[in-house]
Amino acid sequence: MDCPVISRHSKNWPNGACCSLVLWSTKVIRAKVLLNPLPCRSTGDDDVAIKILFCGICHSDLHSIKNEWGNAIYPIIPGHEIAGVVTEVGKNVTKFKAGDRVGVGCMVNSCQACDQCSSGFENNCPGMIPTYNSVDHDGTITYGGYSDSVVVNERFVVRFPDGMPLDKGAPMLCAGITVYSPMKYHGLNIPGKHVGVLGLGGLGHVAVKFAKAFGMKVTVISSSPGKREEALGRLGADAFVVSKNADEMKAAMGTVDGIINTVSANMPLAPLMGLLKPTGKMVMVGLPEKPLEIPPFNLIMGNKTLAGSCIGGMRDTQEMLDLAAKHGVTADVEVIGADYVNTAMERLAKADVRYRFVIDIGNTLNKDSTAASQ
Amino acid sequence: MDCPVISRHSKNWPNGACCSLVLWSTKVIRAKVLLNPLPCRSTGDDDVAIKILFCGICHSDLHSIKNEWGNAIYPIIPGHEIAGVVTEVGKNVTKFKAGDRVGVGCMVNSCQACDQCSSGFENNCPGMIPTYNSVDHDGTITYGGYSDSVVVNERFVVRFPDGMPLDKGAPMLCAGITVYSPMKYHGLNIPGKHVGVLGLGGLGHVAVKFAKAFGMKVTVISSSPGKREEALGRLGADAFVVSKNADEMKAAMGTVDGIINTVSANMPLAPLMGLLKPTGKMVMVGLPEKPLEIPPFNLIMGNKTLAGSCIGGMRDTQEMLDLAAKHGVTADVEVIGADYVNTAMERLAKADVRYRFVIDIGNTLNKDSTAASQ
Repeated sequence: MDCPVISRHSKNWPNGACCSLVLWSTKVIRAKVLLNPLPCRSTGDDDVAIKILFCGICHSDLHSIKNEWGNAIYPIIPGHEIAGVVTEVGKNVTKFKAGDRVGVGCMVNSCQACDQCSSGFENNCPGMIPTYNSVDHDGTITYGGYSDSVVVNERFVVRFPDGMPLDKGAPMLCAGITVYSPMKYHGLNIPGKHVGVLGLGGLGHVAVKFAKAFGMKVTVISSSPGKREEALGRLGADAFVVSKNADEMKAAMGTVDGIINTVSANMPLAPLMGLLKPTGKMVMVGLPEKPLEIPPFNLIMGNKTLAGSCIGGMRDTQEMLDLAAKHGVTADVEVIGADYVNTAMERLAKADVRYRFVIDIGNTLNKDSTAASQ
Repeated sequence: MDCPVISRHSKNWPNGACCSLVLWSTKVIRAKVLLNPLPCRSTGDDDVAIKILFCGICHSDLHSIKNEWGNAIYPIIPGHEIAGVVTEVGKNVTKFKAGDRVGVGCMVNSCQACDQCSSGFENNCPGMIPTYNSVDHDGTITYGGYSDSVVVNERFVVRFPDGMPLDKGAPMLCAGITVYSPMKYHGLNIPGKHVGVLGLGGLGHVAVKFAKAFGMKVTVISSSPGKREEALGRLGADAFVVSKNADEMKAAMGTVDGIINTVSANMPLAPLMGLLKPTGKMVMVGLPEKPLEIPPFNLIMGNKTLAGSCIGGMRDTQEMLDLAAKHGVTADVEVIGADYVNTAMERLAKADVRYRFVIDIGNTLNKDSTAASQ
């Protein structure tokens, strides 16, 4: 396999039993004896302690554990699509109480004081702290949701609205907000407008669902002709363009108001920019490894825009979740047991999932933890 | 010299004497006998005939005559910063009459029917016809302002407001609208906001003046340390950053709301994007030869935007000119005679002008036309 192995790990933390799926290094290591258990945070005054029930597997998890972004802090506990139930709250916490259904997405802290934080865009705060594989402001390492519990500052916890299931809702905390936020801020949520969704995967299929919920026309642009039927059928897209088919691309020239580009593979942008109407916008939410290349002519003629968008703020995340519940927008998930994680990673690397793996943490992580962690 | 030579050319057109500066080919040709005089359009029902008094020399003229964009239709009469006086109008013309001070910018026609045209953005019309070196919808070639007259559809003519001089105002028809339009549509015209102007040339110096007129904070970013004094002094910029000075660039990181990028040379964009605040926008108005390269991370982190902008619509061009007159914004020009054009092109290629050459067509083009065109 080309993925490092994630192994089960358990430890009696100060605040109770904690069991996680840990990626110790890029080498294949199956941890048997833990000489250096991971630190676990106790519930502070502003914190919410959460029993994790489900955690989605995002492609970022795969990038991180393989250290493809060159910033891995091993051991890593991945996972930033966390859904569960509140077990305890700190004394200053006002929004949540034990028993509430909640979620945690891609960030767990920020400076909480700058202009961006003050206006609800913690995602743009230079002091934003990712949910795992990061050093928090107190110097501790952050650990993600492939674990049975997590403790998070109240500001970075969202409420699961009634009707939003925890398993199918978990991926909305990353995939959902990642596509919702640029649709909102680049005017790609307006009924009657025409949006292109580039890439039909974990992010793309949610973008299609939101766009249809907004009353938009949707064209899916994909390199996989095999996805046509599903895009036009079950997902309800209005059109499907195979990006490698020159005739189909030509016929779609100048037809869309914007494109949500969810693809993290490197691909030529110029033909894709050609699909945009004048003043059209392509928003990158995938993170290709190599620099984007675009002839300036393709931006300047027609006053076009190439933008980037990184998840979304906490206010928007709650808004997105509420709106998703209202419109019945959830992720298509394949729920797996904790023991299946390594296989899931291999399949994810081959894009062999429609469209998101979600680990059933609550029912499967602790089941045989004693045996696995001995 | 590395520029082709522009030579004087005269002919008795059906509607009067017409004398132009013509670029016959990339080869050095001084036209003596005209075997194939350029066709000249008579004044149609919707047309305005203009006696040209001044015409600015835009860097695009240099690109075109050297065929650097690969689309030259020789012979070329360059020039799209045209200022003059109306001599005749067609019977359907309502906005102008003989004697009016008027201007013509970068385009002389469009489909006049599409969504973009209908909403005032003829610049984004797929059928937009550039002022010179283009084939109009009737199959005729368009010829620009290095000429003593031009006939243009009323829609593409703007009025010079009182107080706007024709010489210093001519470059506003291209340089002015090219920076004004993106400032307007990307929110870079708001008092108190901080705009960066990249490149202090024909476009850049007008952008600085508009930004100050809008009550903004302005940082000039330039590769030429020698421009610091002028930028901070006479032009009134608030700060000056030498783009090649790592310390100055570092100190300016994350400080500007947007950048108007007027540079048409290829340069690394990543460090420049670093100057933007979160959600900051860089708008390209220069047209570098090679594709732009930008690491996706630099767009996605902080939700940044790289946009292109191509001149502006006719409504905005009139608005720009009126606003410029109100605030006393004009281009800094070096007025030259027709005989100096080739020297001016050589100097322009070396950026040796502050900041725009303007040809005094009215007083110099016809002076010795007989001799030159024999």
